[in-house]
Amino acid sequence: MPRIASTWMRGGTSKCWVFDREDLAAADRPVDEVLLRLFGSPDPRQVDGVGGGTSTTSKAVILARAEEDDADVAYTFAQVGIDQPVVDWGSNCGNCSAVVGPYAVLRGWVAPRPGSTTVRVRNTNTGQLIVLQVPTPDGVLDERGTARIPGVPFAGIPVRMWFVDPAGRTTGKLFPTGAVIDEFPDGDGTLPVTIVDAGAPLVVVSARSVGLTGTETPAELDARADLAARLEDLRRRAAVAIGLAPTPQAAERAVPKIALVAAPTDDGADLVVRMLSMGRAHPAVAITGSVALTLAARTPDTVVSHLVGTRTDDDLRLATPAGTVATRTGEHDGRLAVAVTRTVRRLAEASLVLPDAEPAMDPVGAVPGEVATR
Amino acid sequence: MPRIASTWMRGGTSKCWVFDREDLAAADRPVDEVLLRLFGSPDPRQVDGVGGGTSTTSKAVILARAEEDDADVAYTFAQVGIDQPVVDWGSNCGNCSAVVGPYAVLRGWVAPRPGSTTVRVRNTNTGQLIVLQVPTPDGVLDERGTARIPGVPFAGIPVRMWFVDPAGRTTGKLFPTGAVIDEFPDGDGTLPVTIVDAGAPLVVVSARSVGLTGTETPAELDARADLAARLEDLRRRAAVAIGLAPTPQAAERAVPKIALVAAPTDDGADLVVRMLSMGRAHPAVAITGSVALTLAARTPDTVVSHLVGTRTDDDLRLATPAGTVATRTGEHDGRLAVAVTRTVRRLAEASLVLPDAEPAMDPVGAVPGEVATR
Repeated sequence: MPRIASTWMRGGTSKCWVFDREDLAAADRPVDEVLLRLFGSPDPRQVDGVGGGTSTTSKAVILARAEEDDADVAYTFAQVGIDQPVVDWGSNCGNCSAVVGPYAVLRGWVAPRPGSTTVRVRNTNTGQLIVLQVPTPDGVLDERGTARIPGVPFAGIPVRMWFVDPAGRTTGKLFPTGAVIDEFPDGDGTLPVTIVDAGAPLVVVSARSVGLTGTETPAELDARADLAARLEDLRRRAAVAIGLAPTPQAAERAVPKIALVAAPTDDGADLVVRMLSMGRAHPAVAITGSVALTLAARTPDTVVSHLVGTRTDDDLRLATPAGTVATRTGEHDGRLAVAVTRTVRRLAEASLVLPDAEPAMDPVGAVPGEVATR
Repeated sequence: MPRIASTWMRGGTSKCWVFDREDLAAADRPVDEVLLRLFGSPDPRQVDGVGGGTSTTSKAVILARAEEDDADVAYTFAQVGIDQPVVDWGSNCGNCSAVVGPYAVLRGWVAPRPGSTTVRVRNTNTGQLIVLQVPTPDGVLDERGTARIPGVPFAGIPVRMWFVDPAGRTTGKLFPTGAVIDEFPDGDGTLPVTIVDAGAPLVVVSARSVGLTGTETPAELDARADLAARLEDLRRRAAVAIGLAPTPQAAERAVPKIALVAAPTDDGADLVVRMLSMGRAHPAVAITGSVALTLAARTPDTVVSHLVGTRTDDDLRLATPAGTVATRTGEHDGRLAVAVTRTVRRLAEASLVLPDAEPAMDPVGAVPGEVATR
């Protein structure tokens, strides 16, 4: 049975399987097929593969040394379907972006420098340049990271990620409909929505406008099947409105994502956020979503800026179900950049067993009296 | 950072991390501590480790060559806590038992024979001897298994497992209270319960006696918090009744398990079963539970035999949420044995990174303005 080398890494609140592009190509089968089979999809539990049965644990990172001058690593992200045999290539994952830095240093793709090493990453899904700062005290990556972030009870290596000139990477425009607010038909009325493309396309809805406070827990949101269907319908229509799909039915599951926002409830944050990803409430906030929210907050008259009010500094503090995270706005090489920090830990080095493309099926009752099929 | 070799294998509907006992011992730290840290516990999502955040994906198998004459492999099972920093050593896992056969052949611990190879496994948690039959056509393990079982959408290697003389492995008696039915106080009345120790201790309750049909889905059962609390209370009192714990509060989470049973609804099965494990509904049925139910079905006047009626053959077909599985009763070396079959697949060979025992915590705001703690 063929094997494929992979490194399992936690990035932020996600678990990412990291592949060298050449190793995946060596399987000589379509990469979608290889990823789905390795992950055990389609199967809600992914019990026969390395996927974890949730959107944050069914992610692949495919890396190669970059061939361009302004980047060190070419990084492709794949959201591997769980109960559907589909791989989404339409967006980046911010959490998984973080693991690229330590991986590149571990692989020797970038020479570490005393103090901190810069790893320039080109995300091929979106064209986004992400400049990572990886701590390398004494010129060596120290895997004994001691930094902590909300949603992860253990420490890791802190990686700062600058998303350089993030606007319009998927659609060409920061506000791809041309408006900072669009009114979408919803029941008997309309729903005001800001669609912003920065980091990844995001559909932003005021929690209050759909009857929520914004402070609901992920479990409470997931229990609301009616709400999930309503927001999924909205998300798919938004995908059509910004040219990502010809019909709502054809919209990808991973992109655009959707965020519910509300005014802050205390002085510790500027905005309350509840994100949904792949039809489920996100335990914290997607990094791409926080980049999009940052630019939406800085633009007058969006759904977001209405809630955060007039701001005076470069940090935006987001209250998520897991705690507060902040973004920072700055510059890189004269271009606008938004930074977030996530921790990273290498969980395992692995060699994944890849089964044959289509194993023969035994007939029902192959082992009489003991094994029966559904 | 120290690394520990492990093989990730699917056994039935479980995912099991398989360790060589010597590799775990080499870490020179308490094994509970090592397993909890590798798995990322305590954390409901186990995001910083190799655990999958569910009872069926937070399991460790620790193996060594056996030092006794009647067994080839010494097998210890560990149910690694998810949101609690506790490792349960009190019971075996039938699904994980299946992986021991292919692993022993792959490691060369047992010489394969043309056709089928017998691997004799001593489970150290319970003293149970399990005789595994692993298909080895042409005297070689063929990992391209083509057998299928309910609850797993992909094929695997079929491993038949004979549980030899399974009665009383944990408590010393098949019916550890001395009765085939006990009446447990429940609300204003009592609930008839059969506690049977075979494979592992199991508390059996008629679904009807707690207001269910037995055909509920796992999701429907998990949504009934009132029911879960009532059954968990019963399970803990049963643990005390059979001497597994001094008080209900001290009862382990993994043992005894609990099963709801009902009369069959069609000709395709002899009994309808819904199991609970670690407080959640099992997607199919635990193997140890099916062994216990088999002996309970063969004993007159238990909760189970009342439902299956008079039986005439050696197969017992159990209708589970994932489909029908069957047990077979037979003999091994003149002793009663119960067989079940599960499929196995090796998912990955891995080298797990073990962080230091107690990483220093950064103070709040270690990366000012970007990372904050809860």
